Amino acid sequence: MILSDIQKQFDTRGLVIQNVGIKEIKYPIRIIDQQGIEQSSIGLFDLSITLDATQKGAHLSRFIEVLESGPLYFSSSGEGLDNLLNYMKVRLQANRVFLAVSFPFFMEKLAPQTHLKSLMDYTITFRARKFDDAATQWETTIQVPVTSVCPCSKAISVYGAHNQRSILTLRIITACPVPIEYWIRLLEQQGSAEIFSLLKRPDEKWVTERAYENAKFVEDIVRDVSLLLNQDKNIFSYHIAANNIESIHNHSAYAEISSNGQNNLFD
Amino acid sequence: MILSDIQKQFDTRGLVIQNVGIKEIKYPIRIIDQQGIEQSSIGLFDLSITLDATQKGAHLSRFIEVLESGPLYFSSSGEGLDNLLNYMKVRLQANRVFLAVSFPFFMEKLAPQTHLKSLMDYTITFRARKFDDAATQWETTIQVPVTSVCPCSKAISVYGAHNQRSILTLRIITACPVPIEYWIRLLEQQGSAEIFSLLKRPDEKWVTERAYENAKFVEDIVRDVSLLLNQDKNIFSYHIAANNIESIHNHSAYAEISSNGQNNLFD
Amino acid sequence: MILSDIQKQFDTRGLVIQNVGIKEIKYPIRIIDQQGIEQSSIGLFDLSITLDATQKGAHLSRFIEVLESGPLYFSSSGEGLDNLLNYMKVRLQANRVFLAVSFPFFMEKLAPQTHLKSLMDYTITFRARKFDDAATQWETTIQVPVTSVCPCSKAISVYGAHNQRSILTLRIITACPVPIEYWIRLLEQQGSAEIFSLLKRPDEKWVTERAYENAKFVEDIVRDVSLLLNQDKNIFSYHIAANNIESIHNHSAYAEISSNGQNNLFD
Amino acid sequence: MILSDIQKQFDTRGLVIQNVGIKEIKYPIRIIDQQGIEQSSIGLFDLSITLDATQKGAHLSRFIEVLESGPLYFSSSGEGLDNLLNYMKVRLQANRVFLAVSFPFFMEKLAPQTHLKSLMDYTITFRARKFDDAATQWETTIQVPVTSVCPCSKAISVYGAHNQRSILTLRIITACPVPIEYWIRLLEQQGSAEIFSLLKRPDEKWVTERAYENAKFVEDIVRDVSLLLNQDKNIFSYHIAANNIESIHNHSAYAEISSNGQNNLFD
Repeated sequence: MILSDIQKQFDTRGLVIQNVGIKEIKYPIRIIDQQGIEQSSIGLFDLSITLDATQKGAHLSRFIEVLESGPLYFSSSGEGLDNLLNYMKVRLQANRVFLAVSFPFFMEKLAPQTHLKSLMDYTITFRARKFDDAATQWETTIQVPVTSVCPCSKAISVYGAHNQRSILTLRIITACPVPIEYWIRLLEQQGSAEIFSLLKRPDEKWVTERAYENAKFVEDIVRDVSLLLNQDKNIFSYHIAANNIESIHNHSAYAEISSNGQNNLFD
Repeated sequence: MILSDIQKQFDTRGLVIQNVGIKEIKYPIRIIDQQGIEQSSIGLFDLSITLDATQKGAHLSRFIEVLESGPLYFSSSGEGLDNLLNYMKVRLQANRVFLAVSFPFFMEKLAPQTHLKSLMDYTITFRARKFDDAATQWETTIQVPVTSVCPCSKAISVYGAHNQRSILTLRIITACPVPIEYWIRLLEQQGSAEIFSLLKRPDEKWVTERAYENAKFVEDIVRDVSLLLNQDKNIFSYHIAANNIESIHNHSAYAEISSNGQNNLFD
Repeated sequence: MILSDIQKQFDTRGLVIQNVGIKEIKYPIRIIDQQGIEQSSIGLFDLSITLDATQKGAHLSRFIEVLESGPLYFSSSGEGLDNLLNYMKVRLQANRVFLAVSFPFFMEKLAPQTHLKSLMDYTITFRARKFDDAATQWETTIQVPVTSVCPCSKAISVYGAHNQRSILTLRIITACPVPIEYWIRLLEQQGSAEIFSLLKRPDEKWVTERAYENAKFVEDIVRDVSLLLNQDKNIFSYHIAANNIESIHNHSAYAEISSNGQNNLFD
Repeated sequence: MILSDIQKQFDTRGLVIQNVGIKEIKYPIRIIDQQGIEQSSIGLFDLSITLDATQKGAHLSRFIEVLESGPLYFSSSGEGLDNLLNYMKVRLQANRVFLAVSFPFFMEKLAPQTHLKSLMDYTITFRARKFDDAATQWETTIQVPVTSVCPCSKAISVYGAHNQRSILTLRIITACPVPIEYWIRLLEQQGSAEIFSLLKRPDEKWVTERAYENAKFVEDIVRDVSLLLNQDKNIFSYHIAANNIESIHNHSAYAEISSNGQNNLFD
């Protein structure tokens, strides 16, 4: 029996669709870190194409065939995802193809005093797109938790200072690929103190005192990150945000700087 | 045209279904607080019945008719929700009926030093069930954010102490109805310090110092709440949990006490 | 005692911060709908300013004072939110101010055959910003659930066709204010069928048959919405996305059209 | 310098804490499936102990040491997690220890007609506890998405029938360990049709028609699962729930059966 191919039909509305695809599908992935060590994780994928004005629909099952086509295997700077984009172009017969993959990434950290090892997880997103035969474009998002101590609370109080977990989110586009480990380390050093999974008492003392000595508003954190990024010629554009899960409020404090000077609320 | 009533058909499998209903439907609600002031909110409702072994399906549209049947109007101790249960019994022809409604509830708070007013939101859930002609049974869940300062970090550090937002969750069953304001105030006083939406500098100083003086583990918080609740003859059973959004870790610290001595992980 | 004002200090890093503020704070709001009827809801607010390069920090408590300054009261086209922006400019001494408020909005719907009434909830977001003395700029986001029936499944199957809830999300900027009810109705008519809270059997029959007759891919839905919006001279720009919670997959199908022809994955 | 051990102090309140621990920490895990093939995944762990009435606090960092102590490696029936519990008993000096780990688990499925391969992900949770020297107790939760077609909509409509993704959630305690693959397959066969990641047109036709022929309410699904489970002598207790993401409503339809006949709303 021949089953009609509705998706392939001619569409008369004359409208290009910038993105058609599948969203939020989980597939196992492997990432090769800076030391060449392979790390398994679970990727949450969005895959899409730009659909010509003349075609009624995209053949969405082919996106799964792309995911099934080979090992989902890439470096911590994203190299290897290119293969997926190239195969999407062929399999979906599309000129413009897009992918986004988010995943937990682990790094081993040493507690600051006892040097005991533990793993920390970071949430990473690679976004990539390929238009015709142009080079693939990349955007990387890195989420890193740090501690922030409030400078105002410290200055006005006889003792103590409110502090909290702060989530730093960097979105960045670079000329040459950069491993996510580099950005993670850069961001971790810009809070009042780093966060660790495992802290024994000498470590906790060190982190507490270090954070107290180094009180920072969300404003300070994004400015300090921005100063560092502004010196890096490899960066095309970036957006850095800090979000404090305030310990004395039921809401967050928030600051963000875009390299292009634009405000984010409408993007 | 007569449309067949599939739900009403006889079911041969001989299995009672303890709960059949609808989940996560939003409807506007009004709550009368302790001072008799009406507060509008948005309720997220689950409504269900126990279905007899002989009936194929429940008539789910009738749950919406119940929600539409009158003003969704109840006191801050839940009085008024009874009407919904009674109407469910009639409209759904069920012997056992259940409802759960979650909603944000607001209380005006005064900043501790400047006495400036602001609103704080708390997440409340009323669960109620009615079996045959027995009295309605109630369970109330109250979520309250507080600040917690770590006693260990304070004791071992020359200055500072890590602190964080801690979410206290009380589930409670009482003999006589108790307004949620009572539980909110009780819980707020058991953290290292209360949380406020609006704090000017004198208030922030007060909260910072007060919290530092009053360092508490999650263990301390649940024990102190438990001590208070154990003295209250009106309480049948309770479960108190404290969840610290740790400022120095990327995970939470957690403690819970059940009045019945049971562990919660399997419930 | 004089408490130092750290936020007011001079900052030497020379970096403007495009957005500094508070995030995800709940406050009760009132919306006046098209018929002039007042509707209570709960707003989830983000408020921010652009911070001058010379100032160390924003006085975040003043955002709460803005929320406390008067009734949070606006029309279903957003009129009234201007007052908040204007007061933010004064209270925070800022040239550029921003707000976003998300809330559930209810509309009464009549079942298509029995004409029984029920409420449907929609998720709305108003974003607004004011730069210096320029007119306020607005962006509105409207989320509407509809049913979508798959044309391919219908065409190739002897009977039946897979269908699912599809979430339509419209982001739109217009010259003159437009009530959200207008966009809700426009979007609801572009699925395979509308969704209702209350459907009796004659209604369910009508919706089922109507949807089956009117099978649409996500691609069809966004194109049909786009055709309508392209005719509207009042619209500056829009972005329409359809997201099918596929009934035969564990992932979503997705399509989006931007009036400016841009792909959204990097925004 | 000697750092005081606050947690170890004597507590005078005389209250046992049933659970103290850490929550929602991610660690890489490996699962050996039924064919002996190793699968990498990411576990979200809760670890806790019961704290004696005489001790002020638990040493939470030791939970991380437990996670770091060896490979997090277990079979698809949970064997191997015992090691963690045993090590928790020793390292935390606790008589009662608990763990819960949730993770995405993948199974390869063959499309029903073309037999093309693709992966499906399921959300699994193992909960385990060990009291003194008693045998470890287990509870497994398996979440499986299926398609459900509404029998009422089918019966009353000339053509079509509304259908949707339905999430089946089984919580189960057995005498002997059972691999999760067994429960996944059992549940998948009880919807109107199975769900697949990859379906070509012949497969989509098959799934559409199969589901239409096999229309089922949420009530039917939980009863059919229950009938099967009731025949299994290895099962101590279970709770089965079906949640339909209704395609014609903005809310879910829901049914649940507990083997012990209890209603779940208060648990």
